[in-house]
Amino acid sequence: MASEHKVIPSVSLYLNAACDLPKEIEKAAKSNCSSVTVPIVHWNFNREFVREPLRSKHVQFTRSDLLLSSSQWAHKVISRIGDNLDLDSPIDHIRKQSERTIRQEMSFAEHLLQTGYLYTRLTKANCTNFARTVGCALARGTLLVEVPLSNPKLTQNSWRRDIGEEEQEVENPWHWWNNFRMHADGNAVLKVALELTADMPAQDEIYRWLGEPIDAIVLSSNIFLTNANNYPVLPKAHQLLVNRLFRTFGCHFILKANPNNGHIGNYVDYIRHTIQQNYTRDPAQGYEDYLQIPLQPLYDNLDSVTYEVFENDPVKYILYQNAIEQALFDRVPEEERETKTSIIMVVGGGRGPLVRAALNASKTTKCKVKVYVIEKNPNAIVTLTAHINELWLDGKVELISTDMREFNPPEKADILVSELLGSFGDNELSPECLDGAQKHLKENGISIPCQSTSYINPVFASKVYNQARTAERNIHSKDRIISSRHMEQVYVAYQKNSYHIDDPQELFQFVHPNKDTDPIDNSRYKTIQFRASIDCVMNGFTGYFDTVLYKDITLSIHPFTHTKGLLSWFSMFIPLTEPVQLKKGDAIMLHFWRCVATHKVWYEWCISEPVKTHVHNFDGRGHPIWQ
Amino acid sequence: MASEHKVIPSVSLYLNAACDLPKEIEKAAKSNCSSVTVPIVHWNFNREFVREPLRSKHVQFTRSDLLLSSSQWAHKVISRIGDNLDLDSPIDHIRKQSERTIRQEMSFAEHLLQTGYLYTRLTKANCTNFARTVGCALARGTLLVEVPLSNPKLTQNSWRRDIGEEEQEVENPWHWWNNFRMHADGNAVLKVALELTADMPAQDEIYRWLGEPIDAIVLSSNIFLTNANNYPVLPKAHQLLVNRLFRTFGCHFILKANPNNGHIGNYVDYIRHTIQQNYTRDPAQGYEDYLQIPLQPLYDNLDSVTYEVFENDPVKYILYQNAIEQALFDRVPEEERETKTSIIMVVGGGRGPLVRAALNASKTTKCKVKVYVIEKNPNAIVTLTAHINELWLDGKVELISTDMREFNPPEKADILVSELLGSFGDNELSPECLDGAQKHLKENGISIPCQSTSYINPVFASKVYNQARTAERNIHSKDRIISSRHMEQVYVAYQKNSYHIDDPQELFQFVHPNKDTDPIDNSRYKTIQFRASIDCVMNGFTGYFDTVLYKDITLSIHPFTHTKGLLSWFSMFIPLTEPVQLKKGDAIMLHFWRCVATHKVWYEWCISEPVKTHVHNFDGRGHPIWQ
Repeated sequence: MASEHKVIPSVSLYLNAACDLPKEIEKAAKSNCSSVTVPIVHWNFNREFVREPLRSKHVQFTRSDLLLSSSQWAHKVISRIGDNLDLDSPIDHIRKQSERTIRQEMSFAEHLLQTGYLYTRLTKANCTNFARTVGCALARGTLLVEVPLSNPKLTQNSWRRDIGEEEQEVENPWHWWNNFRMHADGNAVLKVALELTADMPAQDEIYRWLGEPIDAIVLSSNIFLTNANNYPVLPKAHQLLVNRLFRTFGCHFILKANPNNGHIGNYVDYIRHTIQQNYTRDPAQGYEDYLQIPLQPLYDNLDSVTYEVFENDPVKYILYQNAIEQALFDRVPEEERETKTSIIMVVGGGRGPLVRAALNASKTTKCKVKVYVIEKNPNAIVTLTAHINELWLDGKVELISTDMREFNPPEKADILVSELLGSFGDNELSPECLDGAQKHLKENGISIPCQSTSYINPVFASKVYNQARTAERNIHSKDRIISSRHMEQVYVAYQKNSYHIDDPQELFQFVHPNKDTDPIDNSRYKTIQFRASIDCVMNGFTGYFDTVLYKDITLSIHPFTHTKGLLSWFSMFIPLTEPVQLKKGDAIMLHFWRCVATHKVWYEWCISEPVKTHVHNFDGRGHPIWQ
Repeated sequence: MASEHKVIPSVSLYLNAACDLPKEIEKAAKSNCSSVTVPIVHWNFNREFVREPLRSKHVQFTRSDLLLSSSQWAHKVISRIGDNLDLDSPIDHIRKQSERTIRQEMSFAEHLLQTGYLYTRLTKANCTNFARTVGCALARGTLLVEVPLSNPKLTQNSWRRDIGEEEQEVENPWHWWNNFRMHADGNAVLKVALELTADMPAQDEIYRWLGEPIDAIVLSSNIFLTNANNYPVLPKAHQLLVNRLFRTFGCHFILKANPNNGHIGNYVDYIRHTIQQNYTRDPAQGYEDYLQIPLQPLYDNLDSVTYEVFENDPVKYILYQNAIEQALFDRVPEEERETKTSIIMVVGGGRGPLVRAALNASKTTKCKVKVYVIEKNPNAIVTLTAHINELWLDGKVELISTDMREFNPPEKADILVSELLGSFGDNELSPECLDGAQKHLKENGISIPCQSTSYINPVFASKVYNQARTAERNIHSKDRIISSRHMEQVYVAYQKNSYHIDDPQELFQFVHPNKDTDPIDNSRYKTIQFRASIDCVMNGFTGYFDTVLYKDITLSIHPFTHTKGLLSWFSMFIPLTEPVQLKKGDAIMLHFWRCVATHKVWYEWCISEPVKTHVHNFDGRGHPIWQ
């Protein structure tokens, strides 16, 4: 598939050392590498903190910052810190010397860069002091943390006959990163530089990485093969993974190859080629993993921009039109089509897309219709009135300017059409609205939609979670504050950077018209059990919905049944105030409530397995939906 | 042992129902019961929420509030809510009816009482919706939650031959309470009414309750025995437990007995008798589980009240005097006692208790001394100068008014005496101070103390934890806020309401004089492994210290070696921002740092097993100790 837009992934050349930094940058640029990844401190300089003379005076411990301009330091160099240090050594003086060394490197890095890239490497699970010294301390820029995709020991052991299969149980490097990240309290400055290894782990282990903040892919020349033309290529599985990671994260590349072999350019060309060949532009590009507060169209009036975005959905109104057509066919026998007028009520008309769908359906089915459009937003009424005066001139459309829960139409409807659904189905209060409006529907009348269902699954999604987590904090404050105002809120987001821990399950369902005996009770409570198939962390839930417009015409954002091309809804993200660490096989018992009071509706949630959490959003304190 | 002070534990009579409430209160009072525990809603009144006529109008659903004065409602009645309700029924309409019923009861309770007692009962582990509806909702007063000490099923099963030992695994009711409490986010309004059962659980399970907020002991007449005089008495094990709980919590009693058997008074008399007979006044009474911010005497000047409290310790200065005596004996051969003058330096003299100890030691040993007293607090210098002018007239005492880290005495000391120790040993910066002062000590001089060691163990302590947890919150705010300012702070508290999950282990040790090569590094890092012997929750750590004054003369607040009568130090409480739920057998891996910078010293801590927590108090953000 040819790419529609040219993307050029950037590649940084990883050097063990750089004697002449400007020259190395120049050389790398000739091979299309946009930067070099080098140790921040030149090995030629001695460093000593305990003994004289270096203990009591500051000396030059690395190359001068004047070698490069500050823009070059920021864009042409990824500064490596902590090479060959062990901050978790059991030997006290090694640990202390490592702490002093890396602190000096971090301090120099802050001197050089304000928002640039640092780079370091994890080699073991026991990294608590490393996480504390480095992971907690950095407050700006980005620290790339190199983690191998599979444990190097695994490869070594597989060559050794003396080690049986049962002894092969080695730590998965994801745990190294997870420990580092947890101890560092999920500091948003920390990103993963995932180093692909010759061994490719199981699918589940790869998926688990998709929830992590991956920023770079590290490719070593030794995982490349050579093709018939003697050019380096990646094995098929690695190719697929690289492209999947690039699509999810838009990450850049770090290339580990001998700079003197003369073929660096070939590796870079290959990386560019494989990315460009597999790239297709995401129509929702720009929205990835960006938290949004769900709309409350019942409480707030939508603005023109929002209406326009939704009206531009390529499939939604076509499916609405199809549903109305089907309903008209079913209600009006062929012989009555020219005589019988069907009453269609559009509740929540906005700027008129559903009216248009109804009028189109009337035209294609040759059924006569009268359309009442009910709308409460005075700004949208301007548009609707203009349409009636300028476009819909045949008097078929009548505007009723009021709240749909209170209006009093002159006649009852054959078909009630609405689009009150949010990303979680009922979260824009369609049940409350339609229960109020359904008294204007004829006994055997049809509601489009006639059913909506929400779905939910546990998730680990570092980027959206971090946004919620840091919403409360002043960036200059050192305080750690977790408050219900942001952590017990339901969000909407186009979630790409997420690991779905288990398949979605059905949560709540609402049917329209609602035939329950009065008073209708739209509160709900359900418990759902999920299971973790692998050690992982859960920091929230993803929510979806689907809806039956009419018979087999549906709209869905459920990942397994997603309506092709549908763009109007992103999924929900429902955070937990604290991440929960799960073991393989753990049951996750979710409790979810939909609560209804006079003036508001809200969700509450908690888990009771494998640990018990507090009830989130109690009494709607974090996120009430106003009626 | 006779009681020094008369304590009269209050007893409330538990009634299944009360037809004539004022009469029942009067009747109970005749048996020395100070109140009655009754259902808040009278069973005679119908309640219905779904069907007419009660659905749409409010009717009288219980007895009138005018039956009693508001003071009587508050002090003579414990109002029971939720009798015979199941808020976690899998059957939707039972659950919903239960929710409506208990909400009505809670609303009426709020109408009657502002800060009085409510009472409810847990009967199973599955209580998530109960916790949400009741446990999260109450914001004032106290809700007593009745929990049996052992599962009633256990007793039932032990009588049935068809149930083998292996089938006896029933839920421990502590889990019921734990689930309820966790889901309710540790709401401080919730207290335990622990119902003693005929079965007495294992010691560990009893200890676990000591960390919970127990407010009442429920005694049912059927666990009493009858003594030779036909009076009710408790079995020995129950007697011991009742007295232990009373000593820890000062709790009151709820008596479940048939009010018509005419012997209620005998039960009440017995309860009063056993408590009074076993009661001894705690010399630290009034300080129980009350969080205090540790003193920073190096940074702040102590006030007169604080000096007085510490000077009144009945054993501390006697032991200091003994240590100085021993040191003088060792340094001065018998034949030189009348000629040789030993130089004693008291660093941090305060109002002079150590000077007094030194002078006393001189007198008892007949060794000549010269005492330099160094003090930086200008207010204490007033006292010291007065003592020199009025009491210590022989010129043996010389005052040096300065910071001990900077002073310059005319001669070197034989003995350096200080009392710079905090509850955690080094937390008042004795290492930093003494390292500075030791240059004034002769080569073979003696430091008193010569060593201090801190100890730590994991703990669950609901009362102190809740104080830290709610310190940030405005009581009228519904927001849930957890911030580093209070949760990453080290506290001092007289901890009675606590469950010690494992034995204390040694943390950091400091030796004086410090012979380490310059520069002395007083930073420390240690990892310690503990183990949970039972399912439980950990919400922090308790810290202690001991110190060697000289040779075998020590001071200790370590629970296993606590110096008899020592009152000067309570233990430390070091919270975790989130409680950690532990399973029996879980390893707990604690990481603890002592960090030193130019102007401050601070501790950091985290755990890496069984879950990973963030590093607490990073960079001293929650609690710096200023140098």
